Amino acid sequence: MIVGVLGLGYWGPNLVRNFLAHSEVSKVIGCDTRNDRLKFIAARFPSVELINECNKLMEGEADIVVIATPVDTHYKLAKKALENGKHIWVEKPFTSTSAEAEELIELAERKNLKIFVDHTFIYNGAVIKMKELVDKGELGNVLYFDSERINLGLFQRDVNVVWDLAPHDISIMNYILPKHEVVAVSTNGIANFNGSENLAHLCVQFKQNTFAHFHVNWVSPVKIRRMIVGGDKKMLVYDDMEVMEKIKVYDSGVDFDTTESIHQALVQYRVGDMFSPKINATEALALGAQEFISAIQENRVPLTSGQDGLDVVRILEASDKSIRNNGEIVELDSSVLI
Amino acid sequence: MIVGVLGLGYWGPNLVRNFLAHSEVSKVIGCDTRNDRLKFIAARFPSVELINECNKLMEGEADIVVIATPVDTHYKLAKKALENGKHIWVEKPFTSTSAEAEELIELAERKNLKIFVDHTFIYNGAVIKMKELVDKGELGNVLYFDSERINLGLFQRDVNVVWDLAPHDISIMNYILPKHEVVAVSTNGIANFNGSENLAHLCVQFKQNTFAHFHVNWVSPVKIRRMIVGGDKKMLVYDDMEVMEKIKVYDSGVDFDTTESIHQALVQYRVGDMFSPKINATEALALGAQEFISAIQENRVPLTSGQDGLDVVRILEASDKSIRNNGEIVELDSSVLI
Amino acid sequence: MIVGVLGLGYWGPNLVRNFLAHSEVSKVIGCDTRNDRLKFIAARFPSVELINECNKLMEGEADIVVIATPVDTHYKLAKKALENGKHIWVEKPFTSTSAEAEELIELAERKNLKIFVDHTFIYNGAVIKMKELVDKGELGNVLYFDSERINLGLFQRDVNVVWDLAPHDISIMNYILPKHEVVAVSTNGIANFNGSENLAHLCVQFKQNTFAHFHVNWVSPVKIRRMIVGGDKKMLVYDDMEVMEKIKVYDSGVDFDTTESIHQALVQYRVGDMFSPKINATEALALGAQEFISAIQENRVPLTSGQDGLDVVRILEASDKSIRNNGEIVELDSSVLI
Amino acid sequence: MIVGVLGLGYWGPNLVRNFLAHSEVSKVIGCDTRNDRLKFIAARFPSVELINECNKLMEGEADIVVIATPVDTHYKLAKKALENGKHIWVEKPFTSTSAEAEELIELAERKNLKIFVDHTFIYNGAVIKMKELVDKGELGNVLYFDSERINLGLFQRDVNVVWDLAPHDISIMNYILPKHEVVAVSTNGIANFNGSENLAHLCVQFKQNTFAHFHVNWVSPVKIRRMIVGGDKKMLVYDDMEVMEKIKVYDSGVDFDTTESIHQALVQYRVGDMFSPKINATEALALGAQEFISAIQENRVPLTSGQDGLDVVRILEASDKSIRNNGEIVELDSSVLI
Repeated sequence: MIVGVLGLGYWGPNLVRNFLAHSEVSKVIGCDTRNDRLKFIAARFPSVELINECNKLMEGEADIVVIATPVDTHYKLAKKALENGKHIWVEKPFTSTSAEAEELIELAERKNLKIFVDHTFIYNGAVIKMKELVDKGELGNVLYFDSERINLGLFQRDVNVVWDLAPHDISIMNYILPKHEVVAVSTNGIANFNGSENLAHLCVQFKQNTFAHFHVNWVSPVKIRRMIVGGDKKMLVYDDMEVMEKIKVYDSGVDFDTTESIHQALVQYRVGDMFSPKINATEALALGAQEFISAIQENRVPLTSGQDGLDVVRILEASDKSIRNNGEIVELDSSVLI
Repeated sequence: MIVGVLGLGYWGPNLVRNFLAHSEVSKVIGCDTRNDRLKFIAARFPSVELINECNKLMEGEADIVVIATPVDTHYKLAKKALENGKHIWVEKPFTSTSAEAEELIELAERKNLKIFVDHTFIYNGAVIKMKELVDKGELGNVLYFDSERINLGLFQRDVNVVWDLAPHDISIMNYILPKHEVVAVSTNGIANFNGSENLAHLCVQFKQNTFAHFHVNWVSPVKIRRMIVGGDKKMLVYDDMEVMEKIKVYDSGVDFDTTESIHQALVQYRVGDMFSPKINATEALALGAQEFISAIQENRVPLTSGQDGLDVVRILEASDKSIRNNGEIVELDSSVLI
Repeated sequence: MIVGVLGLGYWGPNLVRNFLAHSEVSKVIGCDTRNDRLKFIAARFPSVELINECNKLMEGEADIVVIATPVDTHYKLAKKALENGKHIWVEKPFTSTSAEAEELIELAERKNLKIFVDHTFIYNGAVIKMKELVDKGELGNVLYFDSERINLGLFQRDVNVVWDLAPHDISIMNYILPKHEVVAVSTNGIANFNGSENLAHLCVQFKQNTFAHFHVNWVSPVKIRRMIVGGDKKMLVYDDMEVMEKIKVYDSGVDFDTTESIHQALVQYRVGDMFSPKINATEALALGAQEFISAIQENRVPLTSGQDGLDVVRILEASDKSIRNNGEIVELDSSVLI
Repeated sequence: MIVGVLGLGYWGPNLVRNFLAHSEVSKVIGCDTRNDRLKFIAARFPSVELINECNKLMEGEADIVVIATPVDTHYKLAKKALENGKHIWVEKPFTSTSAEAEELIELAERKNLKIFVDHTFIYNGAVIKMKELVDKGELGNVLYFDSERINLGLFQRDVNVVWDLAPHDISIMNYILPKHEVVAVSTNGIANFNGSENLAHLCVQFKQNTFAHFHVNWVSPVKIRRMIVGGDKKMLVYDDMEVMEKIKVYDSGVDFDTTESIHQALVQYRVGDMFSPKINATEALALGAQEFISAIQENRVPLTSGQDGLDVVRILEASDKSIRNNGEIVELDSSVLI
């Protein structure tokens, strides 16, 4: 299989390296209009074929086109690649609007091509372990999902901090809680520097008895990447900055007596045992590349598909509407949600 | 000075102990209708005079009445004590409504009596250090204030988690950022157990270029008590669960170049030095008792006055209105705000 | 039962408080020659009878005499108390020499009196949990025991840092590994300030295939209290400075193939799961007081007896000899070891 | 400059990569007798010339020969390379005996060739920061140096855990404390698996008022890499497993009153401020390669020279003698020490 990578910026070398290492990939073609990025790749990966014209890649021999360019170019480039019969891998967020995402999904289906959206954390060992623990009922019923992703960030020209950082966390939430239906979103934030928001809090309401919250922030000298999944049996904390113990699972220590109303009960202060499972350290991007190539070969939808990309974009759109209206609650159009 | 403590529950023994230890206090009277609580105090503090009738305390020799009873009784008891010429110490939150708080403040002023609201964290060594660092400009302009207070909590019958836990954090915010004017509040939350909310996120907008957020939660087996104050020069993290390093101050590491628009700038990923100051370990309650007694002797308003109690209650009221309306933004009536 | 506490210094108030709280104790008598210490106790514990003459306590009504005075006075005071028919509680280390300890044990046996040596960590929830885990074979065979206890310390006039701090850790080792026989000791250290050693490393060799090491240090601004028990199945880390997770148990992750020589095997770098059990938070001193009073009532040897005190003193003596001879290995006289 | 790398095992690819990236290196030649290792390098670094005969490398065009083979082959290979006029880079430990090291140093001097011993931590950002802080007197007089390096390790056939792990830490000690003269060594350890020692404690005495201790251990599922440098003004803790705060510097908080003997003084329990400096994240191996190539070009001794390698080997030899004699103190022959 031949893979063409469009956009050789910050993330490009990682994409090139992982596709090069895949046994089913016979050739990697890199494409960027910036000469210094082509030189950078040439020095590190001499076997990569390099071109500086996007059209050549689109019309060439590549089976897969990887789109690693700014968000506002995703739709146009993805459409062109699909029209040229290529399977596409698109960096997150999938598109700038849900309408674009829907059109691409439809086009790919019509041409029997596959779309992979690079929600890379879905292939991260810690997230896979979270999914496994939630699926087998270790936590009981999930009461809340809390996520914090804050650091010093690259201020983006066009998108705010929600579009930049939250796709990671929303995709994880959707993966962990697949049966939970988002009904409404409320986002509050601030643009401290007269541009787009650099800090935001996104609250999500579900049809189910569950709540989610996301804190994203570009202005923090300390990097915090932490998730809490609170269940009525156990609670899980995933701290991505921990070297040794990324996931800790705590017994809730609460005897929720359902026969009498819980809010009248005196909740005991007992804290129970804690457990920290071993995490698989395989690079997420290698597993992602593997999944996409397998999905193409087996003619099936990949784990992180266009639909998953669309689900995230819908929440980002609702968040935008909410933040423009001072945090008002914005319902997701249930007619389009599956 | 003679101090009467009304309500000898969870917090009562700490109040008794600290007033007993104060050199200006000649006698402590404890009052509760529950015999087991009277016995408990008698065993530990044999010198305390114990009575089981509230009226006796109100009409007796006490100079100060300490009100450590459920919130919905504060107003009635505080009013009676003031009418009987007593200075009052009231546990947080001050009252159930801002109208009650206003009436008590007016009454106390008329009778030249002092009100102390027990925002106990204002006397905590770490909070005092935070205040000192912010006041001397170490952090630069404050961009955001983020607070998290989650643990397994006593579910209250009448109040939700915001009224139970957030007064601590809101009082700290008001103390740290005295010149910041709160203009609106938006609160989202969930009542997982069919009672009042057990988890909530409170977002606060200011007239100034600053944002605040509070996460309060009764259903977490892990206790997290963490505050972040983000400035454009430095960022401060206060982790109350840390034994050795409660406060850490990080250089922001960002060169905010004001001559070109910041959101177009490439923010560098540099993270600078970190500094963790020594914290005074004196018990907050001892310092609080000292402050109140000094304020009475010097005929001045104490550091945590009725007005401070009112400021917190106003935000709690707005939060209630917002949470009942699905997180809608609720403006604080600026005419009543000073 | 009547308890007399001799020596009301740093540890005295804790002893008084815990005996006062015990249901079988009808009276506590405190004794010190220093008037300020008597006043200190009187203010906090008005029900304690206070005297300033040791002889009165020895000849009085007390059933138990608690000896909380400097080490070099233990023997004389303990002997006098036993001769007066009192059961004795002695702070650690038991005595200044093993000969003294042996004489006291013999005397107590002859008079059917009980000796309790206050190895207080044996009643600590974390140590009890360690013991339980080792006893039920969770760790497999114990390969090593490593202890670190460093902080800013009170420099003692007469004893070095080993006598001051190591008794805690040696008593824990003896408790955790009761079937292990110490055969030799080697201690290296330094006296940075021209007095007795303020830093030392004590290495212990056993008859069994196990090794122990103790680092004690008075000159460290950071308090470290950490133990590692390494087994061939699992490894346990006990960090007493941790608030939430004092004990962590790690799967060793090593497949020790016994059929081929282990030192030729390639040990895999796999690290397995981790588990952190809930720890009982009951105050150790309360459990110690309970144990001693029960042992007297049941006419049996308490869990931390004179013999346990002697076992620790023998290692301290050997350590002294080793440190005076530049760390030379000192064998414990096996004829006197039980 | 042409660099030949002899031995393409675990560390080999890192060496190849860093020399390839150096602007003064025109070609890298890799040499190993194992075909799978040659293939591994060919796949990742296509520009490297690969050969499977050591002699060809020795007699070929290389200016520098990098020796990354087992310790017991270092001497023979290094000698051959020097005789062929090559500068040599040798992995740690330099040689198996001090006699070998001395011979190589003399040979290199005679032929005006340079020896670089790869004490790689000397080029690590955290160690460079430690050196800087000690040199400018931040810690005051250094009272002790304590090092712990424990993890699951590859059991070596020929060398024990001291030879495998301690060279890192001894080289750091020598670098940090260059004016301190080691006079004697005492090492205790255990071979739990009937081979060479897998756990050891090495104590070092100096002519100066300073003490050092090293704990090395191959049987720990938790990786601990921690150093403490205790001074009479401040104390520094270097924890290599920390992501954000590798170095912490604590005020000692002790008022050492020199007018009266310190061991009689009551040391206060105050703990002062803490400071954690920013650490340079440049890869140590890149800085090492840069240093060696500069030293050759400038015809000077590199920072980690043959003499530094010899200083470490002497301590390892003394440690071996001590451990064979049950921890007896072994003096370093002062006549050969510079």
